[in-house]
Amino acid sequence: MKIPVVKEILSANDQVAAENRGVFDADGVFSLNLMASPGAGKTSLILSTVDHLPDELRPGVIEGDLASTIDADTIAARRIPVVQINTGGQCHLDAVMLQNAIQQLPMNGLDLLVVENVGNLVCPTSFQLGTHRDVLIASVPEGDDKPYKYPGMYQGVDVILLNKMDVLPAFDFDMDYFRRGVEILNPGLEFFPVSCKTGEGIESWLEWIRGERVKYLEAGGVAHDLE
Amino acid sequence: MKIPVVKEILSANDQVAAENRGVFDADGVFSLNLMASPGAGKTSLILSTVDHLPDELRPGVIEGDLASTIDADTIAARRIPVVQINTGGQCHLDAVMLQNAIQQLPMNGLDLLVVENVGNLVCPTSFQLGTHRDVLIASVPEGDDKPYKYPGMYQGVDVILLNKMDVLPAFDFDMDYFRRGVEILNPGLEFFPVSCKTGEGIESWLEWIRGERVKYLEAGGVAHDLE
Repeated sequence: MKIPVVKEILSANDQVAAENRGVFDADGVFSLNLMASPGAGKTSLILSTVDHLPDELRPGVIEGDLASTIDADTIAARRIPVVQINTGGQCHLDAVMLQNAIQQLPMNGLDLLVVENVGNLVCPTSFQLGTHRDVLIASVPEGDDKPYKYPGMYQGVDVILLNKMDVLPAFDFDMDYFRRGVEILNPGLEFFPVSCKTGEGIESWLEWIRGERVKYLEAGGVAHDLE
Repeated sequence: MKIPVVKEILSANDQVAAENRGVFDADGVFSLNLMASPGAGKTSLILSTVDHLPDELRPGVIEGDLASTIDADTIAARRIPVVQINTGGQCHLDAVMLQNAIQQLPMNGLDLLVVENVGNLVCPTSFQLGTHRDVLIASVPEGDDKPYKYPGMYQGVDVILLNKMDVLPAFDFDMDYFRRGVEILNPGLEFFPVSCKTGEGIESWLEWIRGERVKYLEAGGVAHDLE
């Protein structure tokens, strides 16, 4: 007798993820799933991004954390629509959590939705949310060997940022070794070295968002199929 | 009808954890479970620890990673008994993985076993390994808000180290805010600010290990019950 428990759970999640995608596409809201280690700078990148967005791109944010509203409070102080998801111990967001959260956002008043996943390089990769692009934020202090140690995360994303470039001289970080690891796992992956502190690289990152959003809209609002 | 699936899995894990504890205690091997974010410095701390241990404390190491043998290779270069566990995508070690690994170590030739868990601030807390103490390594670049965001991890450990103190001036890290978060979750928790790079704090950390090992041995080899 085959007991397909795990498969059923995943399918249920993917079903809701597809519904989320439908909600985004109904309003043409281009959406990003931000993943990273704890403390790599997900919230800082969101702040840098919304601070530099052109006026015609109206952002919304969903913050995922095990506990606390620290991140959502920071975003709300910018007068940007934000919902905090507290997973209550869960190590990742899932599509149902996101479904509940987007019902609390004014979707028809948004152009860009940024979802900050729980800080974790493993579990978030297993749960589709319905978002259009998966974004990984690595950071210099984490070390140059992370692609080799967390290959699933590096394989699955559409773009990678390397944050905290301002402290590069203080760390023993071999950029070639890091890039080689990324290239093996995800050939040709777009890569942006950035510093949310100094602003380095943020303009190129915004250029990428604008370009991907245009591709998304030109493809009729469905740029990527859910895999 | 009640379906007790999750509970059964946890019980099976705890059963094996108790067996692991028995193996440690049969040889008086004091064991530590090292947990941290990716890149907080688990392997660096292990290296600093074994490099400064008195000769009468013979160390062994178990390295847990999703993939790669990078860490085990580094330890093996020190001629220290080491086993690499590759979890193959699993986000934490469990007691069965550890049981298999300790069978490959010369337990009766060890006094201290250091187990490096997968880099993750969430999942490792849910799986007993059978080790005697749970150790959390935080690091300055991760930020001062981590106790508030990952309370389960900070609540469950027996000691905390704050690594990368050498780069403290380069980061906006509020030590009082961090310590307050730790104190709320785990009152009176032992705390060691360290730098594996400069050696700051390592002697105090070694003093803690020696002291805890003495307590363990004086209690007849079973200092802590499995909770």
